Amino acid sequence: MNSSTNDGRRLAILAHEKFPERAKTALGMMRYADDEIVAVLDRTKAGTRVTDHVPDICDAPIVDSFEAIEEPVDALLIGISPIGGDFKKSWRPDVCAAIEAGCDVIAGLHYFLNDDEEFAALAAEHGVDLIDVRKPKDDLTVAKGIADEVDAHVALTVGTDCSVGKMTVALETVRAAQAAGIDAALIPTGQTGIMIEGWGNPIDRVISDFTAGAVEEMILEVGDDHDLLVVEGQGTIVHPAYSGVTCGILHGSMADSLVLCHIAGLEAIHGYEDVTLPPIDTYVDLYESLAEPLFETSVVAGALNTRSIETDAEAEAAIGAFASDLGVPATDPVRFDADAIVEAITE
Amino acid sequence: MNSSTNDGRRLAILAHEKFPERAKTALGMMRYADDEIVAVLDRTKAGTRVTDHVPDICDAPIVDSFEAIEEPVDALLIGISPIGGDFKKSWRPDVCAAIEAGCDVIAGLHYFLNDDEEFAALAAEHGVDLIDVRKPKDDLTVAKGIADEVDAHVALTVGTDCSVGKMTVALETVRAAQAAGIDAALIPTGQTGIMIEGWGNPIDRVISDFTAGAVEEMILEVGDDHDLLVVEGQGTIVHPAYSGVTCGILHGSMADSLVLCHIAGLEAIHGYEDVTLPPIDTYVDLYESLAEPLFETSVVAGALNTRSIETDAEAEAAIGAFASDLGVPATDPVRFDADAIVEAITE
Repeated sequence: MNSSTNDGRRLAILAHEKFPERAKTALGMMRYADDEIVAVLDRTKAGTRVTDHVPDICDAPIVDSFEAIEEPVDALLIGISPIGGDFKKSWRPDVCAAIEAGCDVIAGLHYFLNDDEEFAALAAEHGVDLIDVRKPKDDLTVAKGIADEVDAHVALTVGTDCSVGKMTVALETVRAAQAAGIDAALIPTGQTGIMIEGWGNPIDRVISDFTAGAVEEMILEVGDDHDLLVVEGQGTIVHPAYSGVTCGILHGSMADSLVLCHIAGLEAIHGYEDVTLPPIDTYVDLYESLAEPLFETSVVAGALNTRSIETDAEAEAAIGAFASDLGVPATDPVRFDADAIVEAITE
Repeated sequence: MNSSTNDGRRLAILAHEKFPERAKTALGMMRYADDEIVAVLDRTKAGTRVTDHVPDICDAPIVDSFEAIEEPVDALLIGISPIGGDFKKSWRPDVCAAIEAGCDVIAGLHYFLNDDEEFAALAAEHGVDLIDVRKPKDDLTVAKGIADEVDAHVALTVGTDCSVGKMTVALETVRAAQAAGIDAALIPTGQTGIMIEGWGNPIDRVISDFTAGAVEEMILEVGDDHDLLVVEGQGTIVHPAYSGVTCGILHGSMADSLVLCHIAGLEAIHGYEDVTLPPIDTYVDLYESLAEPLFETSVVAGALNTRSIETDAEAEAAIGAFASDLGVPATDPVRFDADAIVEAITE
């Protein structure tokens, strides 16, 4: 899969019971991919439209099942990913219906569609592809600790939790940098980034010993072809389950600068509600002090997701308070723009 | 594989060009396993004996190849693990010879013997088992953040680098605790610990998202059956390649106390010689501050490997200086004993 093969695809996106708040793959595809979105599957919102829930992205009808889609579709994409990356039984009828209708199915789960006997047999029968973007390459290995040798400046988005916008901030930063005439590229590390960009390593799925190495490999591959690489971060360094992935990406990237991503009003780790977020300056200290024995870096900018805040004036106030806690400039690159981040990185 | 099936096995251990300094699996098996060691394979030291190099472990002849072993052997165990966990071509004749002689082969490499067509075919032909202890279970998943709910006190060995003695310190601590009447058990996280104990999860080989979960699962499994669990740590939090594994083990274990392991005179990360070790108090700060948002813990004792120091008096002086840097008691549990560690943990 690469970007060019994405052109002109007509996608249906499965997001049952999760659209839009907990469907970050779905939203990421709708916001950033080149594909045409024909329909969203969410049985709890059937009959409404995408723009009834999210005003600023491309519109599409929301339906309760694959069979309810009225337009032709090239592929069904699983647009949600539960904790653990499992495949939910309740999605099975839609996946089977898609395959039987001659559609490819694209997923970024830990559970591989190709390893499912029913799906594999059905796909073979109907001549369609099952595309598991979270299946890592076979030739990954340990990091050499040399990502800092590439010509490009490397920035990394880090976060206060999962799903706070690290991929979105990275994509918006790349776009804003490109608009400012900088040769910038994304280093995709998760299923959505990989689906959007058409390449990348699914870091949370690689062998744990190779976490840093899988990031380093991507930076070495493209780091001399660009002036700026923005690495899509994962998890958070205080996550009960995923902190190892976060730590490996930090050390593997050897990033020159960090952008700390947060969501306004967030108080506890999603799914681990008894884990209260530490103060913002604790995150800054942790990310910087973990890097320090290996390479110099610092948090140069903040990105605050202000989706839950009604007015722009209130959002600006929240961003101001966040910037003050951080001691560096901040913005909401979706609500406003990413210029402050690009400036801070390239300063 | 479990401990009871190990009883009475006669093992040959392959450690070509690495015995004894860089053969930590070989040494761990010779020091702690119940198996009888019939011979060590190291073509650079053939004709000498184990005790010519390491005085305080069971003796055995060192030979240049499997075919040079004069005693009957039940299994050949790969006792070394290069960075990356690859299988070296130069070991192939010995593995084939062992299989052809009717021996099982036991390995803890990232490269699985069972996936090697030549070995698999030969093993089938000769009716022997290829045992890959680094192959993780299929049912691992993400951590729930609840390892602190078990009855046992949980201690974790952390380190300044790989190969500084985290497994050895954990094993010596368990033995010393048992000798003091405490119901203690090891939580094995690496190939050698798993080979010695007969169970465990090879944390550095699991899917990176499941790093913490694979540790938590073991603690939940046995944590109500013992009073003290000592988790075998891996890597170091400042390792260019393996820090993610270290971080995942720290957070997955939710350890009540940490034992910092170091090797006297070590100045740079092994294999990454341009990475100078930070000061000891930086390690203490990093491990404690990383844990703090999730659970309370502290470094309560230090373990210094003084193998390179000639006299006990000099070793004691080095341990004293290490304890002073740490601000807590320290010892060398191999040269002296682990009592100070047990006391600090159970205080």
